[in-house]
Amino acid sequence: MKYCSTCGHPVEQRIPEGDNRHRYVCVSCETIHYQNPKIVAGTVPVWEGRILLCRRAIEPRYGYWTLPAGFMENAETTVEAAARETREEALAEVNIDGLYSIIDVPHINQVHMFYRASLIDGQFGAGEESLESRLFAPQEIPWDEISFPTVRKTLELFLADLESTQFGVHVSDIRHALGKPTRQ
Amino acid sequence: MKYCSTCGHPVEQRIPEGDNRHRYVCVSCETIHYQNPKIVAGTVPVWEGRILLCRRAIEPRYGYWTLPAGFMENAETTVEAAARETREEALAEVNIDGLYSIIDVPHINQVHMFYRASLIDGQFGAGEESLESRLFAPQEIPWDEISFPTVRKTLELFLADLESTQFGVHVSDIRHALGKPTRQ
Repeated sequence: MKYCSTCGHPVEQRIPEGDNRHRYVCVSCETIHYQNPKIVAGTVPVWEGRILLCRRAIEPRYGYWTLPAGFMENAETTVEAAARETREEALAEVNIDGLYSIIDVPHINQVHMFYRASLIDGQFGAGEESLESRLFAPQEIPWDEISFPTVRKTLELFLADLESTQFGVHVSDIRHALGKPTRQ
Repeated sequence: MKYCSTCGHPVEQRIPEGDNRHRYVCVSCETIHYQNPKIVAGTVPVWEGRILLCRRAIEPRYGYWTLPAGFMENAETTVEAAARETREEALAEVNIDGLYSIIDVPHINQVHMFYRASLIDGQFGAGEESLESRLFAPQEIPWDEISFPTVRKTLELFLADLESTQFGVHVSDIRHALGKPTRQ
């Protein structure tokens, strides 16, 4: 950030009065431009015991398999965002069955939230951001080609819970040391 | 938003190629400025069966009672944000006992997350944004002077769960029709 989105003048980094963190502050109109984490919402879509994954048609991680998920938009709920992303990426309509995983990813300022979901009619396809979608039995999950650490973690948790048929809500975080290569 | 924070030129609202929503786009450098919901993180801090509330020293809802909560910052986790807000507003150190409520508030582009928490040593006070903090037994909660709908809902859920001693994770939303007065 270099310029004030309110008045167009340059911003500087400083600690505003009454605050204890550096913020972007406009040198002219004094507007403080806060920056906050974003939510990525998605689903674990299930049909007849199999899990629906999408193969990414976009970077990063082009060609890798992912759970349908994406940035939550303004004016929607996390449930709506998760269902929308599933519709957009996998062309699948789902019932949301419950919150499943919340994974903080602080080094990239994101919080990932996955809901358990059921395909309504077994229909699915490849949205614009997907090369293909496919149902995988638990033993077929392509572990060597999973897109992101939060997807891997959610799938690992889900398969473990699938055996016990107890689906709790899992809160965790994924951290990477500064400078360490990350695939997130 | 009127100006591009990257180059300082004006922005316009339009639907970028491959998108389906209006975004702020720079007329000069073409940067797309996405806007996304913010997370408000807080706790339900408990000490010897009583709940710690803070009376707000800032607008909105000056003088009303609230659970300690505030905007999550970049580079922290939701757990860290909840504990930090409790430290800042109630001068209390807590152990986080588990995720408790997630309440989407789509008309103001926020997601509120409250964690169950236990005071570590029973110490608390009034931070800069609080007039005072006080422990309330369940039957003492000042229902007529509660700050926000998400705080009220979380307290209602918590007291109901307190009777059964079963604390699940509660996902819900609070919506207000457009134009309807809101106290959120």
